[in-house]
Amino acid sequence: MKKVLVLIPLSEEQKAQLEALAPDYRYSYVKDSEVTEAQIQDANIIFGNPAPGMIHASANLEFLQLAASGADGYVKSGVLKEGTALCSCTGAYGQAVSEHAFALTWSLIKKLHLYRDDQAKAVWGDEGMVSSLRGATVVVVGLGDIGLQYARLAHAVGAYVIGVKRRLSACPEGVDELCLTDELDTVLPRADVVCSFLPGTASTYHLFNDERYAKMKPSTYFINCGRGTALDGEALCRALEQGVIAGAAADVTEVEPLPADHPLWKQRNMIITPHISGGFHLPVTLENIVSICLANFAAYLKGEELRNVIDFTTGYKK
Amino acid sequence: MKKVLVLIPLSEEQKAQLEALAPDYRYSYVKDSEVTEAQIQDANIIFGNPAPGMIHASANLEFLQLAASGADGYVKSGVLKEGTALCSCTGAYGQAVSEHAFALTWSLIKKLHLYRDDQAKAVWGDEGMVSSLRGATVVVVGLGDIGLQYARLAHAVGAYVIGVKRRLSACPEGVDELCLTDELDTVLPRADVVCSFLPGTASTYHLFNDERYAKMKPSTYFINCGRGTALDGEALCRALEQGVIAGAAADVTEVEPLPADHPLWKQRNMIITPHISGGFHLPVTLENIVSICLANFAAYLKGEELRNVIDFTTGYKK
Repeated sequence: MKKVLVLIPLSEEQKAQLEALAPDYRYSYVKDSEVTEAQIQDANIIFGNPAPGMIHASANLEFLQLAASGADGYVKSGVLKEGTALCSCTGAYGQAVSEHAFALTWSLIKKLHLYRDDQAKAVWGDEGMVSSLRGATVVVVGLGDIGLQYARLAHAVGAYVIGVKRRLSACPEGVDELCLTDELDTVLPRADVVCSFLPGTASTYHLFNDERYAKMKPSTYFINCGRGTALDGEALCRALEQGVIAGAAADVTEVEPLPADHPLWKQRNMIITPHISGGFHLPVTLENIVSICLANFAAYLKGEELRNVIDFTTGYKK
Repeated sequence: MKKVLVLIPLSEEQKAQLEALAPDYRYSYVKDSEVTEAQIQDANIIFGNPAPGMIHASANLEFLQLAASGADGYVKSGVLKEGTALCSCTGAYGQAVSEHAFALTWSLIKKLHLYRDDQAKAVWGDEGMVSSLRGATVVVVGLGDIGLQYARLAHAVGAYVIGVKRRLSACPEGVDELCLTDELDTVLPRADVVCSFLPGTASTYHLFNDERYAKMKPSTYFINCGRGTALDGEALCRALEQGVIAGAAADVTEVEPLPADHPLWKQRNMIITPHISGGFHLPVTLENIVSICLANFAAYLKGEELRNVIDFTTGYKK
């Protein structure tokens, strides 16, 4: 009799759906924040995001189905034993994160963050010229589910979208032009908006640094809704302070929470949101997560191929 | 030899284009803020928005081509003499104002204004659930050029759009359902977002009052980017404070600038921008204005029908 540990806030109906797949297994439902190391060590199957430091390559753990889209904390050596199947929830966050990035984009180009600052002082002021997405060139870096949904939103309101991805493929609907990550530097000078959805892997670490910001136009807005490590925060502060780019927004930072004394907080042309674009803030996200969990649990039980299996060498799904 | 007074900041090229239409006329280019009453009284043709109080039904004034979309200040008795042709610049602001309203909508539904407040205090906090435009019901009140462009933006990102207009017509592309202004109360209870682009006329005065807010859902967001008089500000404060609606945004207020001690400034769930959605903040707006001015000046000179002629009884274009 296998033990299933569930760290995702399922409804009673969703619990019943899960248990119906393997009625003879034993199920525990624990809050993410309250789970103990003993509970993790005991589990054969985990749904959710246990702290990587509590797993210790548990010999019992056969299958870890994350609720997260990024698996960066779990592919490091010593976290999972060889043979543990690791799956992400890629696909669950597409709508929530892409829409948050889209909202950040509109706020930046229409200067709503600056007008909010004025409002706090009851100042009826003029923050100057604004720009549009109609006819703008938007470079979307990372063209997984989230990036592609963002690309389609931008395209739907009239932007010219350049998608940047690791592997060549046919140009997806909603993307006007495709290029490889290696060619990023050739498209950055054309961008009015650069939006990154890159995961946190060794190859994306500090990809956005002084050199990359310098390739953008002084009128470019940069947005990061992937992982905070893709962005060199000190370089971004310099780029904003020196007018190398026009403004930036990030839902993710290299260290989270961002320390209260970090200079990024104080950048006038920088919008920071506290890694809330995903989570369960948009109701559809939890529905998507549950649907992936159920499908993968069913596949696991039948010995069929799992969805979103993580490749331990790249940190991406295979 | 007729005298033409231009209060719009034209480029040298645009001045040459205007003068080429009637080379024997006399042209003066004056800043909006620096024009004198004598200059206004002397002019036969004015391009721009002279202060209504400086016109005094001038006998010389044959044709007033506003740079503004709304003509509310000019249709009042005593401002213009009978026979002066009054034209608005309806159509010039569609992109700029609709996009600003769209940006306000995204900011509200993703709570970016609240995260900006947190950022000012370097607080990494969680402001709770957000919503989406995908599948949301968006009621667009006032379906002129601006309203229609907003409707199309909302429709393009997956909203179900209900357009509200004065006169029945075929349902335009980008609008899913059409209703008359008289039926507004029947659609407000269905709205996730209500966005008003109503002009400032006698019939729109305080249309959005206690009764109308009460018809909306507690989760509804209300946005006003038409004229400030369409909205009862005190009623809006009550609706926000009592949770009758979820939040609001306005680029226009009944008195502008909004007095520093007005309670609207302090509403946490209210975004205020200082009537900047139009103006010349988006470069394409000035291009649109010039193009309307040139076309209407040419028509005026040839005695042909003018575009955007204002009906003095309704305040709308005929």
